[in-house]
Amino acid sequence: MIAATPEPPYVAVIFSSQRTEGDQGYAAMAGRMVELARAQPGFLGVESARDAEGFGITVSYWKDEASVAAWKAHAEHAVAQRLGRDRWYGAFRLRVCRVERESGMGAS
Amino acid sequence: MIAATPEPPYVAVIFSSQRTEGDQGYAAMAGRMVELARAQPGFLGVESARDAEGFGITVSYWKDEASVAAWKAHAEHAVAQRLGRDRWYGAFRLRVCRVERESGMGAS
Repeated sequence: MIAATPEPPYVAVIFSSQRTEGDQGYAAMAGRMVELARAQPGFLGVESARDAEGFGITVSYWKDEASVAAWKAHAEHAVAQRLGRDRWYGAFRLRVCRVERESGMGAS
Repeated sequence: MIAATPEPPYVAVIFSSQRTEGDQGYAAMAGRMVELARAQPGFLGVESARDAEGFGITVSYWKDEASVAAWKAHAEHAVAQRLGRDRWYGAFRLRVCRVERESGMGAS
């Protein structure tokens, strides 16, 4: 579940969110979005964790800003973004970052 | 639980980890580390989520690389890092990033 990313630099998009109550179609769409993201040019990996209180962090990794911009503009993803604002998230924050170095231990 | 960070740029440290089985003193140390981090110069905020399978992402936000380096070298934190490698984590990845832009919705 730890993404096997290449040597930095690359781009990380940190998406922190608080879910509203109830599924309301969220789980199916979230699965679809991961499947779709994986097929995009420049996609490098994704990691996601959500706790029992509905607070979650998803980090997606991308080759460059152009691949982030293309994914943001993807038609099906744009629909999901709208539903996220209207229905699935009580609050969220999205931070776009340049990964400069990394270290770790164990399988990735 | 979404960190109220200032205008970018600032630094994000993404720590993705898989916990081993059992607590083994982890919860107490994790709480202590958050308390200690909050007291460090340059600390801007922290967000954390761990799922039922023990996969978690913690993102801490810092003013600059110098504050990240000082926190890494903190004596009590160094002890926790050693215990993390030896006992608490089956695998982890730490990525140091420069946050370039952010957006969002709702309370932070």
